[in-house]
Amino acid sequence: MYDVIIVGAGAAGLTAAVYTCRKKLNTAILSIDVGGQTNLTNHIENYPGTGPMSGPELMQRFQNEAIGFGAEIIMGKANKVDKTEKGFKVGLANGEEYECKALILAYGKVPRSLGIENEEKFFGRGVSTCVTCDAPLYKNRETAVIGGGNSAVEGALELATIAKKVYLVHRRDTFRADEITVEKLKNNPNIELVLNSVGTKVIGDKNVDGMEVENMATKDRRTLKVDGIFIEIGYVVDTSFVQHLVKVNDKKEIIVDERGNTSHPGIFAAGDITPVPYKQTVIAAGDGSKAALECYRWLTGGKGAILDW
Amino acid sequence: MYDVIIVGAGAAGLTAAVYTCRKKLNTAILSIDVGGQTNLTNHIENYPGTGPMSGPELMQRFQNEAIGFGAEIIMGKANKVDKTEKGFKVGLANGEEYECKALILAYGKVPRSLGIENEEKFFGRGVSTCVTCDAPLYKNRETAVIGGGNSAVEGALELATIAKKVYLVHRRDTFRADEITVEKLKNNPNIELVLNSVGTKVIGDKNVDGMEVENMATKDRRTLKVDGIFIEIGYVVDTSFVQHLVKVNDKKEIIVDERGNTSHPGIFAAGDITPVPYKQTVIAAGDGSKAALECYRWLTGGKGAILDW
Repeated sequence: MYDVIIVGAGAAGLTAAVYTCRKKLNTAILSIDVGGQTNLTNHIENYPGTGPMSGPELMQRFQNEAIGFGAEIIMGKANKVDKTEKGFKVGLANGEEYECKALILAYGKVPRSLGIENEEKFFGRGVSTCVTCDAPLYKNRETAVIGGGNSAVEGALELATIAKKVYLVHRRDTFRADEITVEKLKNNPNIELVLNSVGTKVIGDKNVDGMEVENMATKDRRTLKVDGIFIEIGYVVDTSFVQHLVKVNDKKEIIVDERGNTSHPGIFAAGDITPVPYKQTVIAAGDGSKAALECYRWLTGGKGAILDW
Repeated sequence: MYDVIIVGAGAAGLTAAVYTCRKKLNTAILSIDVGGQTNLTNHIENYPGTGPMSGPELMQRFQNEAIGFGAEIIMGKANKVDKTEKGFKVGLANGEEYECKALILAYGKVPRSLGIENEEKFFGRGVSTCVTCDAPLYKNRETAVIGGGNSAVEGALELATIAKKVYLVHRRDTFRADEITVEKLKNNPNIELVLNSVGTKVIGDKNVDGMEVENMATKDRRTLKVDGIFIEIGYVVDTSFVQHLVKVNDKKEIIVDERGNTSHPGIFAAGDITPVPYKQTVIAAGDGSKAALECYRWLTGGKGAILDW
């Protein structure tokens, strides 16, 4: 019986563990990986205090600290949560079950992928899912953004202030973004629209050298010579196994208040599994800390009265 | 004319600057100090990713990074903000004025101090204003907490799980905290209540050795032999010079939404000047990042549509 089980070992979950362990709460982390989406970035400059380093290196530090304060990390995919008399029971895909008094859900989202050849192979070596994180690496270089939603369009505009060239590859010929933004896109000399087209293959040796794209009408294929490919086609949320306990929004993200409380007492959430709009390591860490402190407050009977710090 | 002026150079303000500068926004920080309240802590273990270090050392790193990305730091006390045709004008106490398109208020709160002899001298050397930050430094040692509000009471209980002894010095004989919490306080063998009493002097050579307290009824003085003194008598908020622009709550804290928007378009806020309940460096940093990204979104005309990341 743990005091706290944290599901997920990305920036939010590991930070939450640092805080719960420092409050002397007996803490287990259940996770399919250690590092979460931060691992996908090969160069982070905007997590303050550490200087530039790779995502996995930063997450290794978070992990060492969480373990150093006493967190136990158990590898496995949580796929079942039930209320028990004394708290909660979390089941893993391998059949193991763990019990706890309070639960912090911080297992994030998974970026949707194109599912094309070489895509996964080059994650972190030219293929990225985060313009905000990685755009500064492509100063004066050639790049492609894949997608047609807001994050692809805004991403292309942002990238075009840094990169020499941005191909925006979109499977339709219209954009969902608002008119003024689409105008900007069309008027930007650094952006070339590649419409009615899909990426079919990532090309490269050690790093990305290009991307093969196919025009869906003509079936013509061409290769875009690029160093960076940003796949911005959204994220997959999986909260199916907790929806009988906590309220989710229309995107199936777990609804939290500004301190990480979900709709169910004793269940807290932080990071990209919540509706937080900006996926950044430092934001996930901050919200992980809030959820952990709120969890501590709840476990110690302090509900209602927030500390008047 | 700056794109962004950030008022305050603590964890929230410096992180906001890292983010605005990386978005190529021309950024100035106006502040009376660099580091803010984090500077008051001489040993931080719970900011993930850096390992333990002093507050000033961590803030020096934040500062170096903000400056490295292009932020300009201007020392001075902001005491005037006006709306202009193109944005805002911020005045300093020395009469200087600076203009900007958007404004991020992140100048925090100042812990209220007792105003007694040696108190300021020993800040960071035994005198602390943050139990959550510094309690782990006092394992098996003797300590005092000054105050009678929730943060003092909760702080004493938290400290008593780590320290050998906690004197709780309170000027009245009743507590504002709820009954169940006060019961816990009275039943805790590690806590000694020193009621109807005020601290009159901090005693020490290089570090704190004790605290002189006076019983307000009898005027008797005694010395508590302690290594750590936690002053938990609240924080002073000063938002008087921005209240004609932004809405504040009953504690005069600037009201923000979950992304750092204030009630005034183009003005954002983060950190301890907002109602965020837990004052932690990583939380201020995370919220500083949110405010900066929201500011960028606003400056680039993206109001309404949040990026569907």
